[in-house]
Amino acid sequence: MTSSPSLAGVIPPVATPFTPAGDMDLDGLQFNLERLNREPLAGYVLGGSNGEFSSLSIDERLKVVELARQVTPRDRLLIAGSGLESTRGTIELTERVAKLGADVAIVVTPGYFRAKMSAAALEAHFTQVADASPIPVLLYSVPANTGVDLPAAAVAKLARHPNIIGLKDSGGDITKIGQMINDTPAGFQILAGSAGFLLASLTLGAVGGVMALANIAGRQLHELYACFQSGDLAGARAVQLPLIALNTAVTARFGVAGLKAAMEMAGYKGGAPRAPLLPLAEEDWATLRQIMEQAGMFA
Amino acid sequence: MTSSPSLAGVIPPVATPFTPAGDMDLDGLQFNLERLNREPLAGYVLGGSNGEFSSLSIDERLKVVELARQVTPRDRLLIAGSGLESTRGTIELTERVAKLGADVAIVVTPGYFRAKMSAAALEAHFTQVADASPIPVLLYSVPANTGVDLPAAAVAKLARHPNIIGLKDSGGDITKIGQMINDTPAGFQILAGSAGFLLASLTLGAVGGVMALANIAGRQLHELYACFQSGDLAGARAVQLPLIALNTAVTARFGVAGLKAAMEMAGYKGGAPRAPLLPLAEEDWATLRQIMEQAGMFA
Amino acid sequence: MTSSPSLAGVIPPVATPFTPAGDMDLDGLQFNLERLNREPLAGYVLGGSNGEFSSLSIDERLKVVELARQVTPRDRLLIAGSGLESTRGTIELTERVAKLGADVAIVVTPGYFRAKMSAAALEAHFTQVADASPIPVLLYSVPANTGVDLPAAAVAKLARHPNIIGLKDSGGDITKIGQMINDTPAGFQILAGSAGFLLASLTLGAVGGVMALANIAGRQLHELYACFQSGDLAGARAVQLPLIALNTAVTARFGVAGLKAAMEMAGYKGGAPRAPLLPLAEEDWATLRQIMEQAGMFA
Amino acid sequence: MTSSPSLAGVIPPVATPFTPAGDMDLDGLQFNLERLNREPLAGYVLGGSNGEFSSLSIDERLKVVELARQVTPRDRLLIAGSGLESTRGTIELTERVAKLGADVAIVVTPGYFRAKMSAAALEAHFTQVADASPIPVLLYSVPANTGVDLPAAAVAKLARHPNIIGLKDSGGDITKIGQMINDTPAGFQILAGSAGFLLASLTLGAVGGVMALANIAGRQLHELYACFQSGDLAGARAVQLPLIALNTAVTARFGVAGLKAAMEMAGYKGGAPRAPLLPLAEEDWATLRQIMEQAGMFA
Repeated sequence: MTSSPSLAGVIPPVATPFTPAGDMDLDGLQFNLERLNREPLAGYVLGGSNGEFSSLSIDERLKVVELARQVTPRDRLLIAGSGLESTRGTIELTERVAKLGADVAIVVTPGYFRAKMSAAALEAHFTQVADASPIPVLLYSVPANTGVDLPAAAVAKLARHPNIIGLKDSGGDITKIGQMINDTPAGFQILAGSAGFLLASLTLGAVGGVMALANIAGRQLHELYACFQSGDLAGARAVQLPLIALNTAVTARFGVAGLKAAMEMAGYKGGAPRAPLLPLAEEDWATLRQIMEQAGMFA
Repeated sequence: MTSSPSLAGVIPPVATPFTPAGDMDLDGLQFNLERLNREPLAGYVLGGSNGEFSSLSIDERLKVVELARQVTPRDRLLIAGSGLESTRGTIELTERVAKLGADVAIVVTPGYFRAKMSAAALEAHFTQVADASPIPVLLYSVPANTGVDLPAAAVAKLARHPNIIGLKDSGGDITKIGQMINDTPAGFQILAGSAGFLLASLTLGAVGGVMALANIAGRQLHELYACFQSGDLAGARAVQLPLIALNTAVTARFGVAGLKAAMEMAGYKGGAPRAPLLPLAEEDWATLRQIMEQAGMFA
Repeated sequence: MTSSPSLAGVIPPVATPFTPAGDMDLDGLQFNLERLNREPLAGYVLGGSNGEFSSLSIDERLKVVELARQVTPRDRLLIAGSGLESTRGTIELTERVAKLGADVAIVVTPGYFRAKMSAAALEAHFTQVADASPIPVLLYSVPANTGVDLPAAAVAKLARHPNIIGLKDSGGDITKIGQMINDTPAGFQILAGSAGFLLASLTLGAVGGVMALANIAGRQLHELYACFQSGDLAGARAVQLPLIALNTAVTARFGVAGLKAAMEMAGYKGGAPRAPLLPLAEEDWATLRQIMEQAGMFA
Repeated sequence: MTSSPSLAGVIPPVATPFTPAGDMDLDGLQFNLERLNREPLAGYVLGGSNGEFSSLSIDERLKVVELARQVTPRDRLLIAGSGLESTRGTIELTERVAKLGADVAIVVTPGYFRAKMSAAALEAHFTQVADASPIPVLLYSVPANTGVDLPAAAVAKLARHPNIIGLKDSGGDITKIGQMINDTPAGFQILAGSAGFLLASLTLGAVGGVMALANIAGRQLHELYACFQSGDLAGARAVQLPLIALNTAVTARFGVAGLKAAMEMAGYKGGAPRAPLLPLAEEDWATLRQIMEQAGMFA
C-alpha cells in the first residue's frame, strides 16, 4: 500500500441544509462548500454527526457525497461518513461512497447495542469494514451520540491495519487521547473531534481536527493550528481559549440547531435541522450572537 | 375514533434469524412464527430491538412485516417497528408497514441526538408520527439502547393523542411506570418491556408485556399473567421470581446473542446475530443452558 | 442466635431538625418522634440519609440515637445508622449505637472509593461489620447518594450471615429486588427504600419499607401496607398511585429540603437542612403544597 | 490582601500508610515525607483522596497535618485537606488545620447529596468556608469520588473571592479546564488533578499539578514541568506520553491499593489501604511492576 492521505489541519464536518419543507437543500450545500473552499481547510467530512447523517436516507447520504465530489478541489480531502449499525450495511455503504469518489471513509462506531459493543466486537467490526473498503478508513468515536467510547486498546490494535489511517475522537478525554498517541504507530493520525480540545490534542501529537466549529471559524482554527505548528504556543493559546465558549455553544449547548443558526449569522446557508431536532429557540439567537461577538466572529 | 386494539397479554419481540452467510433467514422466521402461533400469545412485535431492526435495511424490515402478516392469525396483533432517527423517515416507514398490514406501529424514540431529545422534541416527534400514521401508534422507550428515557410527563401528554394507544417501557423504572399509569387516561395501555418487571408492572396497572423472554417462554409468562388476572398473586410470584435470572440472561447479560442461543436450545431457529453483535461465546452456552434448566425450561 | 427482629411495616428515616443557627434541634426531634409515636409505624431509622447523617458529627449522630431511645416505645424498632467510609470507623460507631440501645444498625455502603467497591470489597466490609456488631445489621444500598449499588449477588452471599437480617434498597430497580428476594433465604427481610416502589416491592416479597415519605404520610403508607396484607390489591394500588408524585417531590425532586418543608406544612418541626443543602426555594413552597393537596395530605 | 502563595509545580497528595493492624503508621509517613523532601516538589497535600482522608477520623486527619508540619520545610507548601460533607464541619476543620500550621486548605466538594449540589449550593458552601478560613482555600473537584463536578461557571465566580486561590481539577475534562482558565483572573491557579493530563493542562495555562503519581515519580513529573517551562514541548511530550499508562495504573485502574504497591516497589512505605479498600491482588503486582518498568521507573 502507498502512503496514507494526510489528515493534518482543520476539517469541518459539513452541515446539511434543508429547505423549509424538510427536503435536502443541495443548492445551499453547494453554496456553503464553495464558500468553504475559500477558507484554509484541509478537507471536508460529509455525512458526519453535524451533517445529520442519522436523519438522512441512504439515497440522501449518497447525494451529499456526489455533490461534494463535484465541488471539492482535488487538493482537499473528501471524507464521507459510511457508518451504519450493521457491519454488512457499513461495508456496502463504504463501497458506494468510494465509487462516488470519496477519498476516505469515516466510520462511526455502532451504538444501538452499546452494552455489547465490547472491544472484541468493535475490533471485528472495523477490521471487516477496513478489509472490504476500497478507500482508507478513519475511525470515529463519538460517545455523546452513540453511547460507545472506542477503547484505547482497540484503537491500538486497529491502528495496525493497513487500511485504517486514523481516528476522529469526539469524546475529548485528553488522557485517553495521549494514551492512544503513545500506543499507535507514528503514521496513525489522531484528530480532535471538537474545537474545545484542539490545542491540547495537538500538544500531545494529534495532527488536526474535524470540528463543527470549522463550519464557521475555519480561519481562526487554522490560525491556532498554524501558530502551534510554528512553535508559537502563546499565540495558539490566545486563539484557543476564547473559542471554547463558542465551540460549546455550537455543539453541546445548542447542538446542530445552534451550529446552523451560527452559520446563518456568518453568511452560510444554515436553516433548521431536520426533526426531531428542534430549531434554535427564539430566545437563544441573541445569546448565541453575543457569544459569537465575544469570540470575535464579527470582527 | 373506534376503540383501540387491546395490547393485553404476552407479546414477544420476535427475533430475526440469519443464515450463516448473514442474509435474513425468512424460512427460519416462518418456522418460528408458526411455532409461536401455538403458544398463548396476544400478538407479535416485528422489527423490535430483539429483532435487530437497527441492523436491517429498510427493505429487510419491510420483508419481515410482509412475511409476518401472512403467518399471523387475525386474532393476534401484528405490531411492526417503524422508528427511524428522523421524524420524516419514521412517518414514511410507518405508512409502509401499515400498507403491509401491520395492526399497530411501535415507534422507538430517536437517540442519536439524545442530548437534544427534550420532552418538547419528543412530543413533537411522536405527535407528527401519530398524526400521519394510518394505524395506531405504540410508544417505545428503551434507554439501554437509545440513551433516551421518554419522560413520564411527555407520555402523559402524548397519551391524549387519539392515535397513540400505549407505551412499551423497557427502562423498567417501576416508580416511573406507576407515575405514568396514574397520569394517563384509563384506556392508555402500558406494557412491561422486559419480563423482569412484568408482575410489578401488572400490579400497578400495566396490561401486559412485550418481552424478549416470550420468544422462548410464552407459556410461563402467560401463566404468570393468567394467575395475576385471576387474583392469584402468590401463584404469579412463584412464576415471576425464578424467571428473572433467565430473563436477565437473554437480555442484559448475554443480549440478543443469548436470546438466539436460548431459542436454539428451545427448538426454535435462532442462529447468530448479525455483526457487529458477536455470537454467544462457546463458554457461555453451558452457563445459559444451566440457567434455562434452573428456570424449568426443559421440565 | 434467636430469631431476628421483624422489620415488617412502615418505617420513616427520621429527619433531623436544626435551629436557625444550625445546631441540632433536639427538642424539635423529640416533638416529631412523640407525634410519630401516634402513627401506625413499625419503628424508626435514626441517622439515615434523610436524617442528614452525612452532615452530622459523630457526637451529633450519637445524641440523636440517645434521644430516640428515650422517646421510642419498646414495641417499635430503633434502627440507627452507623455507616462511615471506613470499615474500622463503621465497626466502632456500630458498637456505640448498640450501647445506646439501638435495636438494629443500618449500615450504608461506603462510596468515596466507589470505583473500587467491588462485590468482594463490599462483602468483606459488611462481613467484618456484622461479625463485630452486638446488634443485627441491616444493609443499606442508596446509589443516588453513594454511587454504589450493592450487587444482588453480594446481597445473596451476605444474607447468609447470621447477624445480617435484611436490606434497605433505595435504588428501586424492581428487577434486582425480585432477584434478591429469589436468591436470599426466607427470613431475610428486604425493605423498599422509597415509597415510590413500595407496592411493587411488597408484591415480589418485600416485608415493608423505610421511606422518607413516612415522616409525613405514615398513615397512608400503612393503609397501603394493610390493604396489601389483606389481599386487597386494588385498594393498595389506589393508595400507591397518587402518592408517587408526592414521594418524588420529597425525595428526588426537592430532596431533604422538600421533605422538611412538607413536614412543616404537616405540623412537624422541619426547618431548613444543614448547608451545603439549600432550603426549599420560595417559589417551590406553593408547588409542594399543591402536590400535597393533590395527594390528599390535607384531607 | 497580600499575594497568594504559589501553587506552581509538582505536588503529591501524600498517601497515608497504615500498620498491618490498621492503625496509622506515622513513622512510615515521616519516612516518606523525608524522602519526598529530596525530590523536586513544590509542596504536599495531606488528607487528600489518595491520603484516604475519607477513611480517617477527624483526630487522625489532624495528626497527619501536625506531623507533616514538623517535617515539611518552610519553602514547601503544606496543603491540608479539610473538607467534610457539611459546611459547618468543613469550617471547623479548616480552622483546626490552619492552627496546626497548614499553609493552604484544600476543600473537596461535598458529594453525599450530589443531586442537590447545584452551582448555587456549591458557591454558597465554598464562599462560607473561604470567608471563615484563616488560610487560603484551594477548591477541589474530583467527580470520580464525589459524583460532583464543580461547574466551570461556579469556579469563575468563586475565583473572585480573595481567599480562594485556585482549583485542583481531577475531572480531567480539558475543555472545561480551558474554559475555566479563560474565565478566571490571571492570578487564579488551576492545577491538574492527575498526571494523565498535566501537559495538556499546562499548555492551556495551568500552573502545575497535584497528582497521585508524584508520590513515586516526582522527578519525572518535574522534568515534564521544567521542559514545558523552558519551551521544550517535544521534551515535555516525551515524558508525558509514556507516563500515562503508569498514572492510570496507580489511579483509575488499581486505585490507592495500586499507588501504595507502587510506593513499596519504589522504596517508600506503602502498605495496604484501609478497608473497605482491598489491597492489590497478588496477580496484579507483576502487572504493575511491568508497567513501572515500561515507564522507566527502575532506570
